[in-house]
Amino acid sequence: MSKEAWQPYVHRRSIVWGDTDTAHIVYTGRFLDFLLEAIEAFMRARVGCDWYRLNVEEKMGTPFVNVGLDFKSSVTPREGLDTRILVAQVGKSSVRVAARGTGAESGTLRFTGTATFVFITATDCAPLFIPQPYRAALEAEAAEAAALLSSESA
Amino acid sequence: MSKEAWQPYVHRRSIVWGDTDTAHIVYTGRFLDFLLEAIEAFMRARVGCDWYRLNVEEKMGTPFVNVGLDFKSSVTPREGLDTRILVAQVGKSSVRVAARGTGAESGTLRFTGTATFVFITATDCAPLFIPQPYRAALEAEAAEAAALLSSESA
Amino acid sequence: MSKEAWQPYVHRRSIVWGDTDTAHIVYTGRFLDFLLEAIEAFMRARVGCDWYRLNVEEKMGTPFVNVGLDFKSSVTPREGLDTRILVAQVGKSSVRVAARGTGAESGTLRFTGTATFVFITATDCAPLFIPQPYRAALEAEAAEAAALLSSESA
Amino acid sequence: MSKEAWQPYVHRRSIVWGDTDTAHIVYTGRFLDFLLEAIEAFMRARVGCDWYRLNVEEKMGTPFVNVGLDFKSSVTPREGLDTRILVAQVGKSSVRVAARGTGAESGTLRFTGTATFVFITATDCAPLFIPQPYRAALEAEAAEAAALLSSESA
Repeated sequence: MSKEAWQPYVHRRSIVWGDTDTAHIVYTGRFLDFLLEAIEAFMRARVGCDWYRLNVEEKMGTPFVNVGLDFKSSVTPREGLDTRILVAQVGKSSVRVAARGTGAESGTLRFTGTATFVFITATDCAPLFIPQPYRAALEAEAAEAAALLSSESA
Repeated sequence: MSKEAWQPYVHRRSIVWGDTDTAHIVYTGRFLDFLLEAIEAFMRARVGCDWYRLNVEEKMGTPFVNVGLDFKSSVTPREGLDTRILVAQVGKSSVRVAARGTGAESGTLRFTGTATFVFITATDCAPLFIPQPYRAALEAEAAEAAALLSSESA
Repeated sequence: MSKEAWQPYVHRRSIVWGDTDTAHIVYTGRFLDFLLEAIEAFMRARVGCDWYRLNVEEKMGTPFVNVGLDFKSSVTPREGLDTRILVAQVGKSSVRVAARGTGAESGTLRFTGTATFVFITATDCAPLFIPQPYRAALEAEAAEAAALLSSESA
Repeated sequence: MSKEAWQPYVHRRSIVWGDTDTAHIVYTGRFLDFLLEAIEAFMRARVGCDWYRLNVEEKMGTPFVNVGLDFKSSVTPREGLDTRILVAQVGKSSVRVAARGTGAESGTLRFTGTATFVFITATDCAPLFIPQPYRAALEAEAAEAAALLSSESA
């Protein structure tokens, strides 16, 4: 009862002049950076998995298998971007996340996205059964996210 | 008979040190730049549509509706990247392309991708019936590409 | 007496996986982005000048005349980066800033830099006498920064 | 007599939509990428030193000590960019280059720049006497470049 309610992870970032193109809006190519940056922050904050340390110290990696982005409205430096990351599926080696970017002040939907990555050994790039404690944290996130995701796709 | 056979458009680029990350391979976020750059080059070379002039002089734009990337093998600066662009579908306002990235020397498949963009007016962002001569060129590319795409998805 | 003491402006940012290269440190090319981003944030926070609104609404621009960077130690995602921005000189149209990047936790010096930009009209790119209230804010910053800068170059 | 005359190395690149910002010109932050990319191409073509192989296979690196850029005129996707790289000085461990960017068709001066990098061991980051055959190639380039550089600074 005293336990705090789970909240989906949201990564906030500024949108800067250099993110824009001649059309006065954020260049399409930046959105994959925004998505990856949000997933990286989520992995560190919620899963305790820091991509840099994972590679350099634990000799593992998490290469991406696929990504997809649906653009809903244009983004400008007039407000920041909030990217929510939910775990959609946890497999033996793979993790699938669902992302949702909204205006930091307006709440307007900017994009939705999905991405799948796989835990591998850095030495021979062989898929790895997702190691603990990362697995436990990812499965807990997936369980919490399930209701939210099913309500949104309904 | 004397007409030269159509060949699919292929955009070649170098892979540089700055494209790589700590895992010694190209950072995932770079692939959307590679895809967009190849589509931009295709549009200029085959469709006669230069994104910069289209925006600044013709007051039109071609924002993206969605993009998707499937990563097949890792990329390094050891060889360049060839990205083939085929027109998969031409609608009233929208264009769907299918991309395929391979090693410039090895021919090894690196990624496949799709992307959809829409012609709009730059002033009020209203969708636009794709203007000539862009429409004719896109439809001709789509007709040529159809056989190739169906053979590859078979 | 009750007035709060002036503090130099410091822009904090995370360092992410995508900022690194094969040498396991931040790619040199990223540092100009870091510098520009810090100057942009300084201009908004301290001078009330938002580059995007300045261009789109006020029809002015602030193109850069020169930039210089001296790299002092390598940067990794192990800690964030704090970039301090001081106004070194305010001319008729031009502003010169001095930057200093340090580790967000360690305080270790990462780089020093300088940059000069000029206020112009966006329509004909003619240099502009720096308009109020930007001029007043920049001159106040320069006055406060003078002592700090002279002590550091001594 | 039959020997072909030395020509300065020039790296040509396209300027793309994604390089631009809201001001309809190339974003300042891109110029350091352009400079580094040109130096990397020069090192591979003229010095036989490939940064990626140098790091991964020879366990050496060439981190930058400083860079400087003077912007002369704005760049757009209307034409490509030619960046000429000359070796200005070769020290025990360090190399200083001078760059000059011009419009690929117009020849208009876009920027000048300088950069200094140092050969180090990748394992302990200790400065390294520039190894052969890189040293010989760099010194030959410096000898050829000397006359050109002194004529331009006169």
